[in-house]
Amino acid sequence: MLIPTAKRMQNVRRSFVREILKATTNPEIISFAGGLPNPKFIPVDPIAEAVQFTLAAQGAAALQYCTSEGHPLLRQWIADQYNAAGLSVGADQILITTGSQQGFDLLGKVLLDPGDRVIVEDPTYPAALQAWGMYEPVFCPAPTGPDGIDAKRLRKEIESGAKLVYCMPNFQNPTGSSYSAERRAEVADALRNSSTVLVEDDPYGLLRFSGVALPPIACHLPEQSVLLGTFSKTIAPGLRLGWICAPKQLMEKLVIAKQAVDLHSENLGQWVIHRLVTSGRFEQHLQAIRDAYGRQCRMMIEAIERYLPREVRTTRPEGGMFLWVTLPPGILAADLFERAIQKGVAFVPGRAFFAHGGGENAMRLNFSNSDESRIVEGIRRLAAAMEEM
Amino acid sequence: MLIPTAKRMQNVRRSFVREILKATTNPEIISFAGGLPNPKFIPVDPIAEAVQFTLAAQGAAALQYCTSEGHPLLRQWIADQYNAAGLSVGADQILITTGSQQGFDLLGKVLLDPGDRVIVEDPTYPAALQAWGMYEPVFCPAPTGPDGIDAKRLRKEIESGAKLVYCMPNFQNPTGSSYSAERRAEVADALRNSSTVLVEDDPYGLLRFSGVALPPIACHLPEQSVLLGTFSKTIAPGLRLGWICAPKQLMEKLVIAKQAVDLHSENLGQWVIHRLVTSGRFEQHLQAIRDAYGRQCRMMIEAIERYLPREVRTTRPEGGMFLWVTLPPGILAADLFERAIQKGVAFVPGRAFFAHGGGENAMRLNFSNSDESRIVEGIRRLAAAMEEM
Repeated sequence: MLIPTAKRMQNVRRSFVREILKATTNPEIISFAGGLPNPKFIPVDPIAEAVQFTLAAQGAAALQYCTSEGHPLLRQWIADQYNAAGLSVGADQILITTGSQQGFDLLGKVLLDPGDRVIVEDPTYPAALQAWGMYEPVFCPAPTGPDGIDAKRLRKEIESGAKLVYCMPNFQNPTGSSYSAERRAEVADALRNSSTVLVEDDPYGLLRFSGVALPPIACHLPEQSVLLGTFSKTIAPGLRLGWICAPKQLMEKLVIAKQAVDLHSENLGQWVIHRLVTSGRFEQHLQAIRDAYGRQCRMMIEAIERYLPREVRTTRPEGGMFLWVTLPPGILAADLFERAIQKGVAFVPGRAFFAHGGGENAMRLNFSNSDESRIVEGIRRLAAAMEEM
Repeated sequence: MLIPTAKRMQNVRRSFVREILKATTNPEIISFAGGLPNPKFIPVDPIAEAVQFTLAAQGAAALQYCTSEGHPLLRQWIADQYNAAGLSVGADQILITTGSQQGFDLLGKVLLDPGDRVIVEDPTYPAALQAWGMYEPVFCPAPTGPDGIDAKRLRKEIESGAKLVYCMPNFQNPTGSSYSAERRAEVADALRNSSTVLVEDDPYGLLRFSGVALPPIACHLPEQSVLLGTFSKTIAPGLRLGWICAPKQLMEKLVIAKQAVDLHSENLGQWVIHRLVTSGRFEQHLQAIRDAYGRQCRMMIEAIERYLPREVRTTRPEGGMFLWVTLPPGILAADLFERAIQKGVAFVPGRAFFAHGGGENAMRLNFSNSDESRIVEGIRRLAAAMEEM
């Protein structure tokens, strides 16, 4: 028998980025494709120590069911970070999620009816499109540039009615660009007095290696903003722990949705992360990541300038994990990808990041997951692939 | 501003069982309410050892992103168990989930359109109703008794068209009853040549302390069956790891849904569980749980017979964690609950387990999470509460 699936599943596909990741497990291939943190900075020994400490101190309690909202001390620590960044947030506004990916799913469940309009940066993070796509909204892309999302276009989309707008103001995935202070204020102005919710995603904010951090857009609009965060980029993605920070009126519904989807997130890992972030060595750990990623980013930009054709353009991020590279006229990223794989280097073609098409002449390069020598070699392979075209 | 939520969220409430759990954190209260494993049998030291082993052997790889499908060796081990039980299953039919709760959510996402009919046992597991309720199906309850779901009623519901039927044939939650071999065959017969999918949930199957295990219903209908499983009852619920076993044609869509909701389940825990189940001591660990729960179950039944009024009826499970107790005429479980809490004992009123009402004179008692002396004392408190009525 053929099992009929739900309507929402009929046009979905596997995540292109995750499928590329599978294709690049060959260790011969230098992968600039994934968004993986450098394994060198996954704190294996501190995690092992924190597990032992937690199990010795808590015993079975750290392995039993826990509340759907998450570990109270970890929620308080997250709220404290926001308060230090200029927001005014209680621990009761924090819901621990199974990675920030689950934040998208829970927000979709709680907020989106089929046909609702969702404004996204163009290009944007494809896994957000994938998660929300299941709730059958209409995506309304607004171009994003070196200073952030196009504020005029955003205002127009908000005036046409939208349930939410999705912004990543720090080191955006895929472009690496950050919103200026002015753009943040303009986005808040455009949203004010509308019923559109701001979803402000900040997976990379702590990975700033140059420039000065700016307060979240949510500071301007606390009652209308949801913030998403994750420990995947600063501690370890495999632990699958992130969070939603939401206005109290949304929390009740988000907790119900959380109960429905997985009861609660992994308990032991929440204790472990709380121990790591309060160990007194967390800032030092972050600084080591920032220093390394900063060097890797500069190395990649230098290699691009040295080895790739002069017409190639790249963004110059102040943090995060990605460069957005525009190819010379006449070179399509999809064609380059095929040749690049043969030369032993992978990236994500720009097309994957656009809700309704675009980016055919662009690509995303990850600089976090390759050491400096591999970065230079990878860019040289990319140059060899381009030369053939 | 008031943030408008999606239509699907307008009639949902927090899980009643999980809210009762919060009310019973007072250690003075003897709780027969939750479905928690006894913390004595959560293998804290073996888990600590398995974490150290995994981190020493795998390093950062056990903390990095992994495939959405889950740890290949763990998937193979699960498939092997099914094959030993009479099914014919490949590792590629196993998807690791964030607890079996996520199995419900993923199946809802992949299978359910609004208005689809879902046949459930009456009474049934409320968290399944909560998860699937988000996809706005129509629940069609079919009574379940000492030998399983009413086969005639099931056949009628299938003939009226249903997307899926949800069965828990071993030590059902909440009644503790198991399907007879005949009833299993009748259920399979009723489903055969229909387009209704069997969802066979088996969280407690390994916790059999008397009687003889029967093969899954899915043995009769492999192409039409989805099996759900979990490590929550045999290892530790806080690790949030379970699985779906599905026909290959469904797996592709389930993996896409999995990517959308949380990319993958916690990585380290999958390694840890694989080490525990292949350690050679897993069967011994299970036997210790079975022995203890068997004693606790007998102790609770004896205490009920000794201390509660003669008109009280209880099921006599051969495994699992729950008794289903019918109260004397004229006593409502909701009224008893209020008095019982005052006397220092908690349970779940039967009403919570019915999709469309019922069970007002019944209650679910958990015997796994209380030691023998607490069980007797708890039933005495219940007797005192009943006496007042």
